[in-house]
Amino acid sequence: MFLGNDQGQQLKILVTNDDGIQSKGILVLAKALGVLGEVSIVAPDREKSAVAHSLTLHRPLRVERIKKNIFAVDGTPADCVHLAVNAILPGKPDLLVSGINKGENVGNDITYSGTVSAAFEGTLHGIPAFSISLASRSHFRFQGAARFAVKVARHILKNGLPKDTFLNINVPNVPEKNLKCFRITYQGRYIHGNAVVEKVDPRGKKYYWIGGGQMVFDRRGNTDFEALSDGCISITPLHVDLTDYGVVGKLKKWKL
Amino acid sequence: MFLGNDQGQQLKILVTNDDGIQSKGILVLAKALGVLGEVSIVAPDREKSAVAHSLTLHRPLRVERIKKNIFAVDGTPADCVHLAVNAILPGKPDLLVSGINKGENVGNDITYSGTVSAAFEGTLHGIPAFSISLASRSHFRFQGAARFAVKVARHILKNGLPKDTFLNINVPNVPEKNLKCFRITYQGRYIHGNAVVEKVDPRGKKYYWIGGGQMVFDRRGNTDFEALSDGCISITPLHVDLTDYGVVGKLKKWKL
Repeated sequence: MFLGNDQGQQLKILVTNDDGIQSKGILVLAKALGVLGEVSIVAPDREKSAVAHSLTLHRPLRVERIKKNIFAVDGTPADCVHLAVNAILPGKPDLLVSGINKGENVGNDITYSGTVSAAFEGTLHGIPAFSISLASRSHFRFQGAARFAVKVARHILKNGLPKDTFLNINVPNVPEKNLKCFRITYQGRYIHGNAVVEKVDPRGKKYYWIGGGQMVFDRRGNTDFEALSDGCISITPLHVDLTDYGVVGKLKKWKL
Repeated sequence: MFLGNDQGQQLKILVTNDDGIQSKGILVLAKALGVLGEVSIVAPDREKSAVAHSLTLHRPLRVERIKKNIFAVDGTPADCVHLAVNAILPGKPDLLVSGINKGENVGNDITYSGTVSAAFEGTLHGIPAFSISLASRSHFRFQGAARFAVKVARHILKNGLPKDTFLNINVPNVPEKNLKCFRITYQGRYIHGNAVVEKVDPRGKKYYWIGGGQMVFDRRGNTDFEALSDGCISITPLHVDLTDYGVVGKLKKWKL
C-alpha cells in the first residue's frame, strides 16, 4: 500500500519517546513505521521518564543531529515535539508516535508520563498522535508492539483521529502470537498507598523516595489496566481539554 | 465562622505553588487562608514553573523545615503534595490550594503548569483542591486574589467539590474594588505560532529557546482567557480523567 498525503507526497512520521534516543524501543518502532513513510526521530538525549508535560523554558535547548533523520534534544519529550515541529523538521508531520515505552502507562500515572505527554503535545500542534508502551519491567518484546503500532498508524493515516483526541496504547509483554485481542478502554484510577520511603544519609539527615507504596486499582470493568491484566492490548482515547463539563452547571449556582 | 471537620477538629489547609517557597504569592495566600484553619506550606525550594505534573523518581528528595508549618522541598509541586500527604503532615489536609501564581494559567498552558498540577495531584489523593493565578507579568496585586481564594476555600470546605474535580482560578491583576465578576469557564485553546527562537552561541553552535511565537486564541465564548480579557475572575472546573468518552464508541468499530 502506498500512503501519500493530500499533495501526493510521501507521508512524514515523527517518532519520539521518554526513555531517550538510545532506547531500543524507539529504534524498533521507527524501523517498523518505515513501511508507511519517511520517519524522523526527535527524542531526548537521555532518559526523561516522569517528566510529564514539562516544557523547558528557563534555559535554551541544544539539538544534535545523530544521523540524517535522527535528532537528540537535551530536553523533555514535549520539548522534542515542539522543536521538531517549529525548528527541526521541514514541515508538520502527518503522524506522531511516542514510544515504545519500557513499562506500561496506565491509570492516573499517564499524567506523569513523558511518553503520553509527547502525544499530547503533538495533538496541541494539530498532529494525529498516539503513545505506545510495553507492560513489563524487563525482557521487552518490542516487535509485537511495533507491528501493532504500524497497524494503528496505517489506520490513523487513512482515517484520521477526531480533533483534539489522541490514543494511549499499552501492549502486554507476551509472545506476538499471543497478542490476540485489543480493547478500547477508559483511563483507570488507582488510589495511592503510603508511597514514600524514608531513609537516612551517612550524616544522619533524612531523605525521601517517592514510590514503594501499594496501589489499589479502581475496577470499573473497562479500564486500561484491566485490559492488560486480561492479556489484551489497551487503546484509550484521551483528549487535551481537561474541562469537567459535567459540573459547569452546578458551579454556576455558586454564590461567593 | 468556625470551620471544623467531621470530628470537630480545626480544618487543615495545605498550600503549595510552583514559584517557590520564597514567592510573595504563596505567603499572602497562606496568611489569608489562616482565618479558615491551620495552614501548612509545603512548596518547592526554588522556582519550578512549567514542570507540569512531574514527579521526581530518579533521585530522593530533601525536606527542610523552615518554620513550624513551612517546609521546603527540593522537587516539583507534585512532589510537594505527595510528600506532604505521605511523609510531612500528620494527616490528610481538608483542602489544598496552589498559588498565587505570578502569571495566568489558562488555555492549554495549564497542562504545563506546576501550579495547576499541584491541585491535580491533590485531587488524585482525594483532597479537594484549587489553583489560583494572577494574570500579570509584574506589579502583582495579590491581596484581592487571596481574598477571593478565601471565599472559594470557605465554600469548598462547607460544600465540597465533586469527586475527581478541581478548580483552576485566574484573577485579573486589577485593584480589588474592580474585581466585580467571576465566571465559570471552559479551558481555552490556543494555536501555537512558530514559537521557537534560534540563536548562535560564541562558538558558532545553534541553540533554541521555546517561546516567543504569537498565540492565536480559539474564541468560543466562555473560556478562561475570555473571562480574563473581560476583566472577570475565571473559575474552570477540571477533572483528572483524560478519557475522551465521546469517541469510545467510534473507536470500537475500528478493524485493525
